[in-house]
Amino acid sequence: MNGTAVYPGTFDPLTLGHFDLIERSVKIFDRLVVAVAATSAKKGAMFDVAERMEMISEACAAAGIDNVVVAPLDCLLVDFCRRHNPLPVVVRGLRVYSDFEYEFQMALTNRKLAPEIDTLFMMPQEEHSYVTASMVRELAKYGHDASQFVPPTVVPHIRRFIEREGTGRD
Amino acid sequence: MNGTAVYPGTFDPLTLGHFDLIERSVKIFDRLVVAVAATSAKKGAMFDVAERMEMISEACAAAGIDNVVVAPLDCLLVDFCRRHNPLPVVVRGLRVYSDFEYEFQMALTNRKLAPEIDTLFMMPQEEHSYVTASMVRELAKYGHDASQFVPPTVVPHIRRFIEREGTGRD
Amino acid sequence: MNGTAVYPGTFDPLTLGHFDLIERSVKIFDRLVVAVAATSAKKGAMFDVAERMEMISEACAAAGIDNVVVAPLDCLLVDFCRRHNPLPVVVRGLRVYSDFEYEFQMALTNRKLAPEIDTLFMMPQEEHSYVTASMVRELAKYGHDASQFVPPTVVPHIRRFIEREGTGRD
Amino acid sequence: MNGTAVYPGTFDPLTLGHFDLIERSVKIFDRLVVAVAATSAKKGAMFDVAERMEMISEACAAAGIDNVVVAPLDCLLVDFCRRHNPLPVVVRGLRVYSDFEYEFQMALTNRKLAPEIDTLFMMPQEEHSYVTASMVRELAKYGHDASQFVPPTVVPHIRRFIEREGTGRD
Amino acid sequence: MNGTAVYPGTFDPLTLGHFDLIERSVKIFDRLVVAVAATSAKKGAMFDVAERMEMISEACAAAGIDNVVVAPLDCLLVDFCRRHNPLPVVVRGLRVYSDFEYEFQMALTNRKLAPEIDTLFMMPQEEHSYVTASMVRELAKYGHDASQFVPPTVVPHIRRFIEREGTGRD
Amino acid sequence: MNGTAVYPGTFDPLTLGHFDLIERSVKIFDRLVVAVAATSAKKGAMFDVAERMEMISEACAAAGIDNVVVAPLDCLLVDFCRRHNPLPVVVRGLRVYSDFEYEFQMALTNRKLAPEIDTLFMMPQEEHSYVTASMVRELAKYGHDASQFVPPTVVPHIRRFIEREGTGRD
Repeated sequence: MNGTAVYPGTFDPLTLGHFDLIERSVKIFDRLVVAVAATSAKKGAMFDVAERMEMISEACAAAGIDNVVVAPLDCLLVDFCRRHNPLPVVVRGLRVYSDFEYEFQMALTNRKLAPEIDTLFMMPQEEHSYVTASMVRELAKYGHDASQFVPPTVVPHIRRFIEREGTGRD
Repeated sequence: MNGTAVYPGTFDPLTLGHFDLIERSVKIFDRLVVAVAATSAKKGAMFDVAERMEMISEACAAAGIDNVVVAPLDCLLVDFCRRHNPLPVVVRGLRVYSDFEYEFQMALTNRKLAPEIDTLFMMPQEEHSYVTASMVRELAKYGHDASQFVPPTVVPHIRRFIEREGTGRD
Repeated sequence: MNGTAVYPGTFDPLTLGHFDLIERSVKIFDRLVVAVAATSAKKGAMFDVAERMEMISEACAAAGIDNVVVAPLDCLLVDFCRRHNPLPVVVRGLRVYSDFEYEFQMALTNRKLAPEIDTLFMMPQEEHSYVTASMVRELAKYGHDASQFVPPTVVPHIRRFIEREGTGRD
Repeated sequence: MNGTAVYPGTFDPLTLGHFDLIERSVKIFDRLVVAVAATSAKKGAMFDVAERMEMISEACAAAGIDNVVVAPLDCLLVDFCRRHNPLPVVVRGLRVYSDFEYEFQMALTNRKLAPEIDTLFMMPQEEHSYVTASMVRELAKYGHDASQFVPPTVVPHIRRFIEREGTGRD
Repeated sequence: MNGTAVYPGTFDPLTLGHFDLIERSVKIFDRLVVAVAATSAKKGAMFDVAERMEMISEACAAAGIDNVVVAPLDCLLVDFCRRHNPLPVVVRGLRVYSDFEYEFQMALTNRKLAPEIDTLFMMPQEEHSYVTASMVRELAKYGHDASQFVPPTVVPHIRRFIEREGTGRD
Repeated sequence: MNGTAVYPGTFDPLTLGHFDLIERSVKIFDRLVVAVAATSAKKGAMFDVAERMEMISEACAAAGIDNVVVAPLDCLLVDFCRRHNPLPVVVRGLRVYSDFEYEFQMALTNRKLAPEIDTLFMMPQEEHSYVTASMVRELAKYGHDASQFVPPTVVPHIRRFIEREGTGRD
């Protein structure tokens, strides 16, 4: 299928659920732009935007995926999409109910701001459906590398984070 | 965007919510196959499959949509998709929470039966999100033509149904 | 507070949850019309509309409530409301999530059909929030009088039903 | 209908969804008290309570609504209600599932603290059902005046906020 | 752990999700009684109670599980439990949201009828969480043996059902 | 029933809902370990871990419960459980939908980390199902002792907190 899709998120860090969605999208679309948003300071980011972008690029390279572009999302999503010609569609993962509500509010807000941009939702593999980046961050606080929940190339980043920050056990 | 999408459903009858999804899909995909499933006798079908297919064709014609094919869904959805080459994606509308659960169970079942076929979900316009075919059928039982909830070309079918069946008031 | 409210439902049979809502409503509104809908044959009604109306009247009389009118709901709810002048508001109970969705679809449908009629939702006492008429019917099939879940005046009706129908144990 | 209703919230800022509920309430009740709660510092208030009260008064004045009183909510809601004689009912909007749960916990807590005060829930117009004050605040951080989502009189307040604070793009 | 647990259900037919719960339960409890309820005629049973009991026994035997008793559930669940001494706990699987609500209503109803009996909920393996007996029945109607979704010993029963009934394609 | 169960939580402070679950668990299991997690600073803890442990011990002592051990949860839950031999099961309360999702994500994460440990869910008494520790903290901020929502032995702790901190009214 031709066309570009934009997959926005914070990816702090990239999980197997996120990566599953990337793998599905690159089969359906010609080109996928992964747009990495800044995390609000309040929420306690684990990695800065540059390192998160690096992790996504590394995971795609390791899997031989070459039609992914990783970019920072430094404006409203609809403005980000409008920079592309022709207009991309937005893809998002739907895993659980709380996603459902938040995603729909976002998508309906975006539709009001830019009716010409549509959002398509996809489901990750069910074994990844409960993995959240916030749980990975929680595990890291206790010194756990979360290797069951993230692509292999992400694990060294988590280990460096643990060495740098220490753990909740200290 | 190139490629074929399959939009399966019972469409008994076609609502404005269904039609909104058709209009969105034909902008994103080259070709849309609307696959009309039989309704189980228990559920009390309002129109037979032939008349439901006719209503979809009429509504698309009236809107000048010419890249829609309407077909009966007389087998498992994954077998229906496999008859097409290249493989289509499946599109489904997500309106409300109860949809969410049912749709995910269906999509995960289909993925297990045919991992090569993916399902994309779209949101209808919010003003159509609460319209269900079962409410349209309920209104018709009371002699109401449901013209706020269905495309204009569907209204005469509902009126003929009411004349044929009488109403709950009798 | 002045004004009339309409409380529509099937009440097959009246439960403590329904009755809690009636008791709350008659304190807030001058007059409450309880509108008793026919149950579709498919759903397997336990009591006919006349007996369901009688149960509501008996329970209100036993509680000394005298500003309730019980009437059959033999048309669309919005048409029922329009027979009253001035226009009533509709009241409905919200107990659980599945209610939420169904009630909102109904209320939005009614608003589209009659924008001048608004729906107000109330919560029953939490100890009655999980009681459903369908569970009462299920208990009756096993010969249980459900006396923990319905007003005392409803119990003799259930007992007569059990004598008449026999139980699932036979 | 006679009687006073209290509509509590943070209104940071007033959205079209909030205002829709105000417009519905003033038709049903004689008098509506909009009670504006302080936002916890953690949550990052956009406007202080005084400016939020001013925005509500301005929007009501512009719409010719004269039976609304705006007041700060500086105590428990049940204590706020008890200052009024006769006792008001509480009105709240229900838009989405997460509302449902939070609102019910609040209403049940209030009922335990003050059984004599009841809460009535209303639905905003469906096109406003996904608008949240937090999305408006998010848009403002990117320099967007959110004029599709708030009453016209609120827009100048958002513009002054953007000038004062700068945007996330800086 | 000592003690008996009762696992009630219709098991029409036994799925991998049900069987996962049986396998978990027999590790936690000394003895598990699987109580097989009649399906209401309306719902269109695929297998009668005797054949469903046989399928459960066969699957347990094939897995070397010897502390399971299979029994018909021919009365209210609380009365079934009270026949055992000491009183068992009830175990149920929770897979998805709609389960949640139904299960809680059942468990709260049972608690009201028999406060001395408690219900414990367990989660099946996530890859089985979306498998429902009704989807297995749906597949069988189209001549599909559902072998991805049921224990191997159940497959011959489904095949015999298909031969006996024919398929929806005929 | 023999065996140990671990009931993890923050208990800031212990509510009647938590205590209901403790009372149910000690009847089913030989021994219950209540594991008290640190609250993240962001969330604004009301009591430190030591005082929260003290409140649980006091409430159990007052109720004559002697098979409860209270311990700090200073590591991942699965590592906490692995310190016990034989392995305990984990028990958690399920009250509302948002619990459901969070609890399942936690339980599935724990199962991935430690497949040998299972989680059992129980329902608190329905009249306690809407009580949350965060609402108790909210009430305390307004100088309310929350005595309807916590065990009697917790009330003096809340009163000392109010004296120490002052209230939101100041």
